[in-house]
Amino acid sequence: MSTSIGTLAVIGVGLIGGSLARALRAAGKVNQIVGCGRGKANLDEAVALGVIDRSTHDIAEAVRDADVVFLSVPLGAMRGAFAAMRGSLPATALITDGGSAKGSVVADCRAAAPELLARFVPGHPIAGTENNGVAASFAELYQNRRVILTPLAENDAASVVRVREMWQACGAEVTEMPVQHHDEVLAATSHLPHMLAFGLVDMLARLKENDEVFRYAAGGFRDFTRIASSNPVMWRDICIANRQALGPMLAAFADEMNELAARIGAADGDALLAIFERAKAARDRYVDGLK
Amino acid sequence: MSTSIGTLAVIGVGLIGGSLARALRAAGKVNQIVGCGRGKANLDEAVALGVIDRSTHDIAEAVRDADVVFLSVPLGAMRGAFAAMRGSLPATALITDGGSAKGSVVADCRAAAPELLARFVPGHPIAGTENNGVAASFAELYQNRRVILTPLAENDAASVVRVREMWQACGAEVTEMPVQHHDEVLAATSHLPHMLAFGLVDMLARLKENDEVFRYAAGGFRDFTRIASSNPVMWRDICIANRQALGPMLAAFADEMNELAARIGAADGDALLAIFERAKAARDRYVDGLK
Repeated sequence: MSTSIGTLAVIGVGLIGGSLARALRAAGKVNQIVGCGRGKANLDEAVALGVIDRSTHDIAEAVRDADVVFLSVPLGAMRGAFAAMRGSLPATALITDGGSAKGSVVADCRAAAPELLARFVPGHPIAGTENNGVAASFAELYQNRRVILTPLAENDAASVVRVREMWQACGAEVTEMPVQHHDEVLAATSHLPHMLAFGLVDMLARLKENDEVFRYAAGGFRDFTRIASSNPVMWRDICIANRQALGPMLAAFADEMNELAARIGAADGDALLAIFERAKAARDRYVDGLK
Repeated sequence: MSTSIGTLAVIGVGLIGGSLARALRAAGKVNQIVGCGRGKANLDEAVALGVIDRSTHDIAEAVRDADVVFLSVPLGAMRGAFAAMRGSLPATALITDGGSAKGSVVADCRAAAPELLARFVPGHPIAGTENNGVAASFAELYQNRRVILTPLAENDAASVVRVREMWQACGAEVTEMPVQHHDEVLAATSHLPHMLAFGLVDMLARLKENDEVFRYAAGGFRDFTRIASSNPVMWRDICIANRQALGPMLAAFADEMNELAARIGAADGDALLAIFERAKAARDRYVDGLK
């Protein structure tokens, strides 16, 4: 970004928030970083690691001198965070976030602190690992990853540019789309696959002799189900936050499975081959280059 | 194995058959290997690579001097292979196979060459890569992998021991289970996950603006959908061969998805959390050690 951030307040100093702090620090784009969270041990570790300069459990105090506030709390805690910063946030400060669904966060801001909407530029870095906490954060997490911003009608252009430049300073490729479109795209490419993985492992775990079943699973199964090891609380929040986009997509997928079951029951080899060939072509074409 | 195989006939010299040939050769457990297939280029390559000693397109000729016949053709070609070896197979020769479903191969043998049932010990090595053809084969493919044998009532114990020792010579861990149990276990851990991956990618590929959707997929999606890059013809054959076990499991999974959609629609966080926690616990417990 052309100008540095004087004071950055990171609300929720885990993998996502900690990595942003590290990346901006590494890029020389921030003077001071205040970290806010509930767990004392994690905050102490964040200070010890040099990820943040000082810490507090109080959101109002964390944002008091902020130029930019980054919200990286679970989706279920967003509304309370907006409420807590009312009256304490400097008039010129910008807010952005890292939530995996955007409609719900915008609704949370509108409900809890509508006067902050103009200064809230919602965002979502498409990046992560299976690990949690500040110890898992690293400055390179966002290098060459996509960050989606979903600017609001209330935002002025300069605010959006500042948030864009913040992410570009971390090495990210920033794109923009409307809130609802973001939530549909993420439901398709991230939230739905997580439901399939959670649902499959849960279903197999409920089979009798389930330990034997898992014993004969091979390496492809491990890759396929890796995302079922994700944080259950985080995914509960994502499901509920994005239920309008995700619910219908799950129902559509159930229809797809019933259709496939019917084709298999009818031994309709031509129809099955067409489906598998279409899927393989799309996967080979679009997905192999993903990081 | 305690005794070497004089002549091994490999019907279908691809990843699975070629790797068995290489592994037995490396272990010094085979004198001569005859390869049989339809593609001249692949057979020529198999000879050039030293995987087989000689080749033929004619199954009857391939098995004429065989002590052991290994069938690694697609499931849809098994019946024809049994028929083709009738009258040519030496009276003392054993047959085994590498098919991913076992009930259908047993039915094929019973239908095409019932007199061979006593000498056919069905098997399934739980191993593979995404690559096809003899060029992809390697001697270590079966090292520390599981091979499931599903012996038939018609088999004598000595035949089963010979097949078991053949796989042990390749470094595999051999277990036994009934045919139907194998097909149910594999439907759960391999065939069903492939259907989910094919179905998901196919569904997303049919969305309008599907290229944009895939553009925002992240690394987890690549792992999750890797198995959708598998060979469509092979999977058509597996689906049809194992349709009795797979069809009901797909329908059950569709129910699981509808249930999840209902919980999400109702914003039932407690129920969602319970499902995700159960799945994560099972995945972390059973799957992380898989190769």
